[in-house]
Order: sequence, then structure tokens, then C-alpha cells
Amino acid sequence: MEKSDLTPLFKPQSIAIVGASAGEGKAGYMAVKLLQTYSGKIFPVNPKEQEILGHRVYPSLSAIGAAVDLVLFAVPAPACPALLREAAQIGARAAIIMGGGFGESGASGAKIQEELVAICKETGIRMLGPNTGGYADPINRVVASFSISYAMLQPGPVAVISQSGGISLILACMLENDACGVSLTVGLGNSVDVEAADVIDYLATDHNTRAIALYLEGLKDGRRLFEAIKRTTKHKPVVALTIGRNEIADFARSHTGNLVGSYALKVAAFKQAGAVVVENSNDLVDAASALSLIRLTPAPRPGVGLLIGQAGAGLLMLDQLKSLDVNVPELSAAGIARIAEQLPPMHYLRNPVDAGRPTPEFKEVLKIMDSEECLDAILIYVLHEPTALDPVAVFKELKPMNNPVIFGTAGVTGDIRDLWPQLKEQGVMPFKSPERAARAMRALVEDAELQYRKTRYQKGSAKPLKVKLHSGPMDEARAKQVLQQIGIPVPAFAECEDHASARRAFAEMNKPVIAKVLNAAILHKTEVGGVHMNIRHVDQLTDALNHIDGIKQRGKHRYLIEEMAGPGLDLIIGGLRDPVFGPTVLLGMGGTLAEAVKDVSMRLAPLDQADAEEMLMELKTRVLLDGWRGSAPVDRQALINVLLAVSRLLIDQPAIKELDINPLRSGADGILALDALIVLSWD
Amino acid sequence: MEKSDLTPLFKPQSIAIVGASAGEGKAGYMAVKLLQTYSGKIFPVNPKEQEILGHRVYPSLSAIGAAVDLVLFAVPAPACPALLREAAQIGARAAIIMGGGFGESGASGAKIQEELVAICKETGIRMLGPNTGGYADPINRVVASFSISYAMLQPGPVAVISQSGGISLILACMLENDACGVSLTVGLGNSVDVEAADVIDYLATDHNTRAIALYLEGLKDGRRLFEAIKRTTKHKPVVALTIGRNEIADFARSHTGNLVGSYALKVAAFKQAGAVVVENSNDLVDAASALSLIRLTPAPRPGVGLLIGQAGAGLLMLDQLKSLDVNVPELSAAGIARIAEQLPPMHYLRNPVDAGRPTPEFKEVLKIMDSEECLDAILIYVLHEPTALDPVAVFKELKPMNNPVIFGTAGVTGDIRDLWPQLKEQGVMPFKSPERAARAMRALVEDAELQYRKTRYQKGSAKPLKVKLHSGPMDEARAKQVLQQIGIPVPAFAECEDHASARRAFAEMNKPVIAKVLNAAILHKTEVGGVHMNIRHVDQLTDALNHIDGIKQRGKHRYLIEEMAGPGLDLIIGGLRDPVFGPTVLLGMGGTLAEAVKDVSMRLAPLDQADAEEMLMELKTRVLLDGWRGSAPVDRQALINVLLAVSRLLIDQPAIKELDINPLRSGADGILALDALIVLSWD
Repeated sequence: MEKSDLTPLFKPQSIAIVGASAGEGKAGYMAVKLLQTYSGKIFPVNPKEQEILGHRVYPSLSAIGAAVDLVLFAVPAPACPALLREAAQIGARAAIIMGGGFGESGASGAKIQEELVAICKETGIRMLGPNTGGYADPINRVVASFSISYAMLQPGPVAVISQSGGISLILACMLENDACGVSLTVGLGNSVDVEAADVIDYLATDHNTRAIALYLEGLKDGRRLFEAIKRTTKHKPVVALTIGRNEIADFARSHTGNLVGSYALKVAAFKQAGAVVVENSNDLVDAASALSLIRLTPAPRPGVGLLIGQAGAGLLMLDQLKSLDVNVPELSAAGIARIAEQLPPMHYLRNPVDAGRPTPEFKEVLKIMDSEECLDAILIYVLHEPTALDPVAVFKELKPMNNPVIFGTAGVTGDIRDLWPQLKEQGVMPFKSPERAARAMRALVEDAELQYRKTRYQKGSAKPLKVKLHSGPMDEARAKQVLQQIGIPVPAFAECEDHASARRAFAEMNKPVIAKVLNAAILHKTEVGGVHMNIRHVDQLTDALNHIDGIKQRGKHRYLIEEMAGPGLDLIIGGLRDPVFGPTVLLGMGGTLAEAVKDVSMRLAPLDQADAEEMLMELKTRVLLDGWRGSAPVDRQALINVLLAVSRLLIDQPAIKELDINPLRSGADGILALDALIVLSWD
Repeated sequence: MEKSDLTPLFKPQSIAIVGASAGEGKAGYMAVKLLQTYSGKIFPVNPKEQEILGHRVYPSLSAIGAAVDLVLFAVPAPACPALLREAAQIGARAAIIMGGGFGESGASGAKIQEELVAICKETGIRMLGPNTGGYADPINRVVASFSISYAMLQPGPVAVISQSGGISLILACMLENDACGVSLTVGLGNSVDVEAADVIDYLATDHNTRAIALYLEGLKDGRRLFEAIKRTTKHKPVVALTIGRNEIADFARSHTGNLVGSYALKVAAFKQAGAVVVENSNDLVDAASALSLIRLTPAPRPGVGLLIGQAGAGLLMLDQLKSLDVNVPELSAAGIARIAEQLPPMHYLRNPVDAGRPTPEFKEVLKIMDSEECLDAILIYVLHEPTALDPVAVFKELKPMNNPVIFGTAGVTGDIRDLWPQLKEQGVMPFKSPERAARAMRALVEDAELQYRKTRYQKGSAKPLKVKLHSGPMDEARAKQVLQQIGIPVPAFAECEDHASARRAFAEMNKPVIAKVLNAAILHKTEVGGVHMNIRHVDQLTDALNHIDGIKQRGKHRYLIEEMAGPGLDLIIGGLRDPVFGPTVLLGMGGTLAEAVKDVSMRLAPLDQADAEEMLMELKTRVLLDGWRGSAPVDRQALINVLLAVSRLLIDQPAIKELDINPLRSGADGILALDALIVLSWD
């Protein structure tokens, strides 16, 4: 059956609770109790009870005899499959299975979980969980959970989707603590039917949700999630946090039964899809709050103006923004001159604008900054001095402003407690510390940059590349022929079956040349003495060929004779099919040192020009691309074309399991693939 | 005069206010008003006023006729020097000059500032500022400032020292917002007399202060600050934040007139002195709060136990701790078995210990963890569920515990507001987000590790190295002779005055050799064709010498003939005299790629073994030291010995301005300095 949407799950007209209990403190009691604010119909189910909290209790789901949208499960794992089937039979369209004892807990639990998945597929019922904490929708006051804390959340514009039920509540509490409520907070648990992608698609059209905060651990269908984020970020900002920078897989698997996967690839995919990726829960909450109130117009590199009352705060913010590569442009000469008329001499005005302790001129200075062409957003930090300046009044008077504002301020708790909602009412986002304000601004900027890239390039209607793949294993010559077919330059080379043909090839080539053993079964040619460089004389060639003949291998020795490239910068380009995300392209700096600092960038195929440009910019040693210490700069577009060609090849040729160009050399004569490896799925 | 201590500044028996005013809102009025809670004597000074806020006003400082400890200045800059001199004459021992218009504001202000410094030197009066926000001591209720916010701070155990007055207040407010008060918060302003080092020394014996939070921008006497932090951290933890990771110098200079200086060197020096260095104001506040309540026993690598109610929080904390290189050891088999008896099956117990939602067994599990030998501190995160667990009661019952505890919890504001002081009363430090709790734990661990290193090595009573420095400029041969004298291995080499002596030297050496031009005036030998490698035959030698003879230079050509080292890993070691910190040793990975990622570590000389070990561990590409892809591992102690020798040389020989060993090669035969440069101060 086709999967139905999640409206019955998140906007149910009626809810049944199997395992409902009259025993206070029991899960089945809490589930009924927490639904007291729910405005739809409630049907507790328990053959042994008559009444719970004033509700009539039904002996079974089938006995209800009325339409049920959603069924909450408060029963042990083994009882779930039969009840899920019964739920589908009575026409329920969604279920939430909150208890544990499923895929996360061993073989017998996994078997029950498989049964549940099969029932979902067969009947079309949607299932949240199992092993989930449920959800809370504070706007419609629906609490589908056993945990009392879900009932106390404040309504607001941020939706939280979390793999972990605990984190869904922790994030919602952190948002509440910072005076920002939630439209929905949901724990996915083992997410074997309802996945993050489903909830994201559902929230894309939920008008209560202005921004989505995602916390994910391991993923199953990364490509589906990627596509859901990509669709949604066009209309609504998404902020994502994931784990796995370090080796924590052992513990993670015990949690939801999923593998953690490559942190770097998850981050790359989320970013490529248009999500703002953050590194911790505080930044997740701050970025989502800010984006729920403010979304900048898509722009290639938004300019941020800094207006400060205390220079120290300005320094902290500027240092933080520059670390995050945010553009803080110098103001126009005219603007600076107008600001100078407002302030005492000696203030720094070029951006940051140091207004000193707030005075009546503060508003005028802000007004002038707001008219600066180079700015797309303004970041303010002033100590709260109620006797000197009422910031709420300032923003009220200046409304409407051209630039959205993030406003940082410090004060003792009593002084600033009421300021937050008042500022937000004016469309101004408040933060306490200079760096938190700066990082939130960076989230706005990054979202605008990511959205801009989406509009920049039309997805190529590029026609498929004409490539012929041989049926046998691919040796280096065959791999290089494939590269040539897709327009990737390789050195002049010849496949040689014997010494005589090698000598003929040598005679026609520019010197020096390289002689290599040609055998798809030998993956590490250098280690076995299969690569001989700097050959200028035919005697050296003969020596090399004889040396290669000494390598132990099955079958006849064959040779690759190739013109040797000049010196240059070595890069690595790879293509692979990731089990979670599918076809993926990798760019890395070459050499052991780059390997030691893991200097690579990844993107899902198909890439567009912007993706490829970003990959270059993500290399830690990208400064080397510009020509370092006198060497020639890399032809960036040529490098980008190689990335795009590899991407295209992976999409067009599903038989290619893995591709490696190592090294790809950028020298005085441009870019050349010096070595190539292609592994086919039938190899 | 010798500088006196800061007791009259921070614990004055009486305070005079010059420029006191009856005009509400004026600085001279606020200064008097904010002293209303002060228990000592107050003497407002103003020739035009009779009474301010009930205090008798004196026409001049001299007219007071009673002992004055501290004078607050609320007068324009040009009036300050004469008044400061008068203050010293009536016996005042400290002054605070809060206004601007001094060194930060141009030449005329700088001149006034110089006069003030001269008066301080001459009279011994101590001056805070100029251009400072003053200070607040909420414990003794002394507010020496114009800003009302200083009057509303809560007393507590953290002292804040900030170069910027604004930041001193921002940090104090952030501490107050998180329910942690301050013992003192002080802005240093231009700090031309009272510097951070003075305040740190003062606070070292202040029994109200349990931890010191430092915010510094540019430094003048870095070495003095280094020594003050070093003395203090033996008794009291210091947490430091500084700026300058990026190019923000232009704006910074406009603030306090100081240069920002090298961020990397500031961080290295603070760390070497024993301070915990953080990257933003939130971490500064969190680390100082935690350290004011808890200080771990010095240990080489403290073990942290994680106890969690929600696995997701555990994953976030574990990932964060591992990113920060904190040791999370596996618990003992016996401990795990005992914990398993308390919890349902299938929980992860090896560390993190996943206790699931809090149950009565939680306390027992914590008790078992507390008896684990491998642990030195415990980090807990549980969602606050008051009906399930009262954390305060748990800690009360378990008291005294072997391990200090950081306790993370989330709940809606109303539920957790009162929890913070109650937990602290039990010696338990609370935080809201998993990663904040983890980073605070890292601060505790880092402090313990830094303190441990101090106890580990006695400062060497190493006797001075016997080194002879020539009076003329140092060419490569002379520089290498110096290295030999201090025990740093160099390749066999010969200084040759002519071709004949070069050939004799060549004959006696192992081949291949290198021939280099020998001339202290040529700094880039390779660029001018002055380096010829791989010489195996005497003809090649002659070619090389002829080539060198073609280099344009003053005077006769001389040659360095040297045995060529085998391949290996190249490092860089340098010594310099930093204008702020003095003699400094640098270790870097060699090669353009390492240069592109700025892979260096620095420490102030003299180094000890632990300093040098840390330098190796700080390299981003340190994995290469262990032997990468089959190459030989670096002899770490040999490398450390080079660092120690360079450090010793810089200390013993003040004439050495700069020293560079580039490259220092680590190959199959150990470590060799392949090239060396020494610049003398008289060169």
C-alpha cells in the first residue's frame, strides 16, 4: 500500500489507548491523563477496566465501534503486532508504540519489529516508533506520551524532530527556558515506519511551524532524508545536529539499533540539501529560534553590520563572525560621515560601529546603518541600561526596518526577564552573550547563502555521458579510457603486451616516461615494484620491464607506458556508493600530511557547479589551490569539471561501485589524472 | 617607588570622589549614589557643591583633612594629572580613573596618560584605568563605578578580571543569570599601572574568590602575567579568554590602544602557566562557575564516568568529551556486574552507564560508580522528573562522595528554577544542556591535568650550556656549530674556502653530498641557486661549485659541503624573542601543506619536559610522528631534547634574537638539523 500522510498521527480526530490503566503512575494511566487537554475523542482500551479518569473504557479496539484515527500503545512488545493489525482493521490510520523491547534490544525484539513493519506495509497504517517517547503539540494541546514534562511545554514556532525521545524533550525544554516555544516535538525512536523524512514533509506545510530543528543519530535512508530536507528548505529553514565526530558507535548502536555512519558525510549531505548544520544542542536551539523569527533573503554573501555599546562585546562578536567566515563589510564613506555627526569623536565607525554607552543618538545611528546598501542584517550588542535606553521603544519607532536585527544584551535577571517577548514582538531576536548572538547571526547568513545557491544553477539537463564499460575487471588503462571518454585529461599512455610494443610506444613519447605493471589484480603497484619513473633511455626502459617481469602474478605480464607529468599539486578525487546516501563524490588534498588531517570534502551525486565550488572551498588547505609559494594556481574550473564528470558517471553507470583518481595532478600544463582505479559491481 | 599591593584599591577604608556632582544622571552623581551600600567613609569633592545625597562635600582633596584610601575620578582627562598628584600628596594609595580621552584616543590623550603613569611611579599610588568601568565587590557591597548595573550583582565565588569594562559587567550578568555570583568584577581599561597580573596576585589570597575568570585583549607585559597566573593556579583555578583568532587588530587598537598580539601565543602562554583556556564568554562563565565549586585532584589523565537517563544526551556528551580528548574509561567488570543487578537487561553499562528514566535504583547505580577506581569525576544527565526522582535528596544521602559531580538536567523553567542553588549546596554543579555540562567537565579535567604537570617535573637546575658566539654575522656553518655545542645533531659538514678544500672534504664524506653557498647575507639559498643536492661524483661537485661561484655576492665565495640525509619527516623548530612574552620556542610540521594549515605549537622558554611533550601533542598532524604508512616513528625524546636545548640557549644567550632549524629531519638514522639560521641582536 502507498504510505499515507501524517495528518492522522499529528492531527487526530480521535485517539484510542490500548493498555490504558487506572493504576496511577502506570504508563497506560499517564497516557490517558496527559490527553486531558486534547479536544478530540478518547477511547481507553482495557478488558479489565470500566472507567479511567472519567472516560468509558472499551474491552478491545474492535469494541469501540467508532472512527479511530490514532492508537497509542501502552502494552508490552510481544502484544503489539496483533493489536497493530486490529488497529488497522478498525480503520485507524496511525499508531504510536512507545515502549522498548524491539530492534534496539536484541534478536527477539527485532523479530517483533519486523512483524510491525510488515503490518504497516500491508495495511498502510503509519507507525511512530517503536521505542519512542511520543510527541507533544503544545499549540493544539495534544500530548501523546507517558511523560508529564511533555504536558508543560509552551507553544511556539519551532518544531523539534529527534531520533531520541529524551532529546526531543530536552530540546523543547531548552527552547522553553529561552522563551521560545514549540509547535511540535517528536521522538522518532527506532523509526522503522515514520522516518525523519516523513515528518519533515509533513511539517513543510504545517503553518504553525516556522523552523525545524533536527537531531539525528544514525540514518537508514539518507537519500530520502536528503530529498525531504531539500524540498522543505525552499519554504522553511531546517537546522540539523548529528553525532559521530568520534568513535562512539558501540554505545550508539545500543540506543536505537542504528549505525552512526560517517559524520562528515551526514554533515555534507545536510548542508547540500540546504540545512544549517550546527555542532551542539545550544546552537541548534539558538539557530532554530532565530530562524523561526527571521529568514534573510537568499544572497551569495550577506553583509552583517555590527552596532555595539561596548567595544569588548564587539571584539568578541567580530572575532566569532570572522572565524565563521561571515562578511562584515566596511560601511560607505557617506554612511560613516553621517554616523560621525551623531557620535563623539574617536569612535570606531567603519563596522563595527562603536556607539558607546547607549544615548539618544543610538536610534539615529541604527537608522543610518539600516540604510547602508552593503548590509543585509544587523547585529547589536549593548548592555541593558533601562535608564539610558529602552530598546523596545527604539525598534517600535524604527519599524519597519530594512534589515532584520539580532539583539544581544546583558543585565541582571530581574532587569531582562521581560525583555525577550517584547523584543520578539518587534521582530527582533534577543540573545544574552555576544558569541551566541554572533553564532545565531551566522545561522541566518548560512541559511541565506544555502538558499541562494539553490537558485543559482539550474540542475543540468546534461545528457548522459557515452561510456562503454568492459565486462572484465578494469585495469589502469581501461580506467583511464573511461576517464578520457568523460573528458578527464590523462597523460599520453599506451597499453603494451610485450617488450617490443613497449619500446615502440616509448620511442614516440615525450621523455621522461613511466613504466607500470598493468594488472587489475594488483592494487598497490608501487609496493610490489610495479612503477618505474624518470625513464629517459631505452636501457632504463628494458631494466624497468625486466623488473616488472619479476613480479609474481597470474598470467602474462602487461605494461602501461606513459608520459611523466611535471611537478605540481596532487589532489584525490573519488566516487563511491555509500550504503546510506548512495552515489557520493569525494575531493581530497593529496599527500600523507593531508591524509593525517583528513582534508577531504564530500557531496552527494549529482553535483551541480555550486556543489563542486563548495567542495574546493571546504578543503582545509584550500590556500594551496591559489598557488602557494610561487607555484602555479590550480585551474579551478578544470578541477570542478572533473568533479562534475565523476558525479555524472556515478549517476549514469550504476555498475561502477567505486572510482579513485589518485593523484590528480595540477601542474604547469593543467590537470591530469595520473592514476585511476575503477571497481565494477560485477568484479 | 616599589609598587604597593591592591588592598587600598579593593578594600578601602575610605573613598573620595573628585568631580562628585549633585546633578542626577551625571557620572559624578552616580559614583556617589552607587557607594550608598559602602560601609566606609565617603568624601565627595567639588568646590561648587555643599551636599550630595546627604554627604558633606569638600572643596578639594586637600580640604578633607582625614585619611583617604581610594580616590574615584569623575573629571575630564586633562584635569586628572594634577588631581592624581594631589591624591598622592594627601596619602591616598589608590585611584580609579573611569573616563575616556587617554591613550586610546590619540596623541594628546596619550600624553596625559604618560603623565599619570609618571605620577604613579613617582608616588607609589596605584591607579586602575584610565578608561575603565571601575569595579564591583558584591560581597563587601563596594561599587566603584558610574554604572547602575554594577550595583545589582549577586555575591558569589567567581572573580572577573576584564580588560574591557563592558565585558566585566556582561560576564558578571551572565554569571548572575546562571545563579552564580561574583566576589569581584573589575574592568582594567588601559591598564597602564594596575595590570591583570596585579589583580591576579591580589586575588590569589582573597578568601572570597574561589576561581578567577580572565578576559584579555592585547597585552603589554605578557611575561609578568604568565608568572602571576603560574603562581596563582597552584592555589586557585584561572580560566582565560582572549581574542585575535582573526584579523581584528584595527578595531581592537581603537578600544584600549593595545595591539592584539598573536592569539596562538597568548593561548599557549596561558595554558603553560596553568590556566584553562576557553573560546567564548559562555564557556568562560561555565568553566569558572564549575571550578569555583569543584577542583579535581591533580592527575595525569582523570577518568570521567557518565551516568545518563536518556541515551541521546549520553551520545551528545560522549561525542563532545571525545572531541575534547577527555578520558571516559570502561568501568571494571565487577562494577559493571554490580550495576547490572540494579537495572533491567539490555542497558549499556560500560561507561556511559545508561540508567534509563530515573528510578529508585538510580542512587544505587551512582553509588557503585562512585566506588570505581578508574573514575575521578562523574557527569550525570537526566531529564528532571520530580515525580520519579529528587536529585537533591539523592546527593544528600550519598554525601560524602568520592567523585565530584556535574549534573545536567532539563525541565521547563518553573520546574528547575529552584534546583540550581539546592544542587550547589550539595557540592554538585548543575547545567542545562548536555554539551555545556560536558565542556564544564572538560574544564575541571584540564585544570587537574595542568596542575599535575606542574608537580611532575622539577624545574631543571640545568647548568648553563657552554656556547661561544662569534661577533660577526652567523652563517650556516657557525649556526650549526652552535647547535653541535648544545647537543643537536647535524649532518657531517665542512666549511670550505676554495674548490680544493671542497674536493678534499667531498673525498672523505659518505655520498651523496650537498654543496651550498656559505654566506650569512644570503637568507634564501635555494632561490639563488645556492643549494646543490645528490652529488655523487667529483664532476658534479665541480659543476655545483662553479654554479655557486656565479651567484652575485659581496666578497669571496665560500662553500658548505655536507653529507646528504636520507628521506624522512621534516619538522621546523624555532626560537624567538616575542615583544610581549620574551623568549619563545616554536615547533612546526614541515612542508607547504603544514604551513597552509598553520600546524605549529609554541611555548615560552624555559621549557620543561612536560611543556615539550605537550608541544608534540598539539600538532594537528601529530599522527605522522608515530610513523605513518610504514615510515619510521620519530624518536620523541630526541625531538624533545632539541626543543629543550633551544629553550636553554635562548635563556642563556640573550644576544640570540632568532633561531631557525628548518628542516629538522627525522629519518631512519634519527634526528638531524639540515639547515640552521641564527640571528644575533648585534647583526
